[in-house]
Amino acid sequence: MAEKHIGRQTVFLKNPPSIKATASFVGPKEGKGPLKNDFDFIIPDELWGEDSWEKAESKLVREVFAKVIQKAKLTNDQIDYVLAGDLLNQCIAASYGLRETEVPFFGLYGACSTMAESMSIGSLLVDGGFAENIVCMTSSHFCSAERQFRFPLELGSQRTPTAQWTVTGSGSVVLSANGAGPYIKHITTGKINDLGIKDANNMGAAMAPAAADTIFAHFKDTGLQPDYYDLIVTGDLGKVGKQICQEMLKDNGLNIESRFNDCGVMIFDGETQDTHAGGSGCACSATVLAGHIYKQLIQGNLKRVLFVATGALMSPISSQQKESIPGIAHAVAIHRTLN
Amino acid sequence: MAEKHIGRQTVFLKNPPSIKATASFVGPKEGKGPLKNDFDFIIPDELWGEDSWEKAESKLVREVFAKVIQKAKLTNDQIDYVLAGDLLNQCIAASYGLRETEVPFFGLYGACSTMAESMSIGSLLVDGGFAENIVCMTSSHFCSAERQFRFPLELGSQRTPTAQWTVTGSGSVVLSANGAGPYIKHITTGKINDLGIKDANNMGAAMAPAAADTIFAHFKDTGLQPDYYDLIVTGDLGKVGKQICQEMLKDNGLNIESRFNDCGVMIFDGETQDTHAGGSGCACSATVLAGHIYKQLIQGNLKRVLFVATGALMSPISSQQKESIPGIAHAVAIHRTLN
Repeated sequence: MAEKHIGRQTVFLKNPPSIKATASFVGPKEGKGPLKNDFDFIIPDELWGEDSWEKAESKLVREVFAKVIQKAKLTNDQIDYVLAGDLLNQCIAASYGLRETEVPFFGLYGACSTMAESMSIGSLLVDGGFAENIVCMTSSHFCSAERQFRFPLELGSQRTPTAQWTVTGSGSVVLSANGAGPYIKHITTGKINDLGIKDANNMGAAMAPAAADTIFAHFKDTGLQPDYYDLIVTGDLGKVGKQICQEMLKDNGLNIESRFNDCGVMIFDGETQDTHAGGSGCACSATVLAGHIYKQLIQGNLKRVLFVATGALMSPISSQQKESIPGIAHAVAIHRTLN
Repeated sequence: MAEKHIGRQTVFLKNPPSIKATASFVGPKEGKGPLKNDFDFIIPDELWGEDSWEKAESKLVREVFAKVIQKAKLTNDQIDYVLAGDLLNQCIAASYGLRETEVPFFGLYGACSTMAESMSIGSLLVDGGFAENIVCMTSSHFCSAERQFRFPLELGSQRTPTAQWTVTGSGSVVLSANGAGPYIKHITTGKINDLGIKDANNMGAAMAPAAADTIFAHFKDTGLQPDYYDLIVTGDLGKVGKQICQEMLKDNGLNIESRFNDCGVMIFDGETQDTHAGGSGCACSATVLAGHIYKQLIQGNLKRVLFVATGALMSPISSQQKESIPGIAHAVAIHRTLN
């Protein structure tokens, strides 16, 4: 086991990076949801002045990058690395959105786990002394994701009850070697899990085993109990996947029910917003973390949060070739103070 | 600037990771090229017993992972992380190829720069004490890449003179905190460069500015001269891009000509193999490094190598939307010994 590991999957960060600033922009639908007051900006429509949805998603990345470094009172040349990725083929939202930044760039692909993946790698680079400031970010867009993964919107296809609604938005954090918190104290890195779910309209079920596996590993590695955290929050399991994850953990002797929520459940009003099983997409966990959860940490309403973003690692081609859907989840433990 | 940086883009690794083992499998065409004796295995045909090219690519990843840890005399549970990605939409070659490993997984997307990206992040994690052993790897496949990025092979489309041939294969290294070399001493992380090239059949020209930019940054940050290295090798610029890169550097006062080669030029015989401007794809640099270059380092024919894998960060959608092609390149300095 590596020097700084505690257990197979978890690192305890001795020089915990501080989340110096966050930024989150969302689409109009997210801007009418229960967390609407926590985002920095709500774009007026899905195109936001661009001539394609993909370009609008790149613009979200570009503008959120600019916003987060402005909020952190930094300039581009003070950012050592930007770690980013997205759902679009070849991650073009990140590449095109960040191509003018002149910041050393590591592209990531973790599907909807990308926010936690970027914060995990970012935390290791800051803790290891390789970076003073790192921008971690991701994006997704309802229209570009539907076109790419499912059906063109113009078809007006009916959605299944287990379907989720890809969040339009981008979320970002600046991790810093110097800062006043909140701090990242542990990261638990996920393994790929595939229990054989093949329904691309039931991503929550496909990702739930990975979420349960990573949450279980986190508590096993750290020796902590679920009530240590005020909130254990998964990325985008939605209503269906959240229930499965909770039950899988209970079957393994870990009851997280009183602390557990899911960004996909939180971001939309399930009664009135017609989003079926809830929100999904890289931006789901990223904007809820950078918006709502970060505010709650700063205000002291939350003191310790286990943020577990979840990704489904399939593509339309793997689905057409009758493959099942592998899932992954990475956990980042965020503390309001160092105590 | 971060504690362990020397210059904007470069880290000097105080505890340099050792490349404990490498493995490389290639396709039949690569297995007839000038480097054929340096690969571990040449697959008999492009499907390799699978029912799709994508599944054959995943099998390459799965088998090369197994091979590299066997050569390193390690087991899966001794690998702290696997860092991998590929060219397929949503990086399914890596995700499906590695889903049974039970190793904590960080998915990367750096297009054809992925090998250097994985070794860069891997080196930081080993140097920082976060990992004892890391597997870094990537893959590409001629048939799956043509289908996805250009035209279905069945169309029999004519190729342009500047077109390159995507290498079928997978290359991998084990980076280790303990080992007898070769060692990684510096990494130089690239910024996204986009000088406006829009021709998806001239990727070499699109990537050349990024390669030149990263090579220039490496020598600026380290204060070294090109003749410090026995070999400065880019990933897959091909004949056209190599020439452009060399000239761009010369215009900036850096003459690397006597040391410079490109994996895309090396892997095929340009006279007899009908590969136009040369090889490309994630596996181009990965297999040439893990096969030929590693052997030369072990045998002492090369003592110091600057490995600069190059990626074009576009997608078919960005090309259809008339976007130019951003490039990126990451450099990894490999030394036979610590002296």
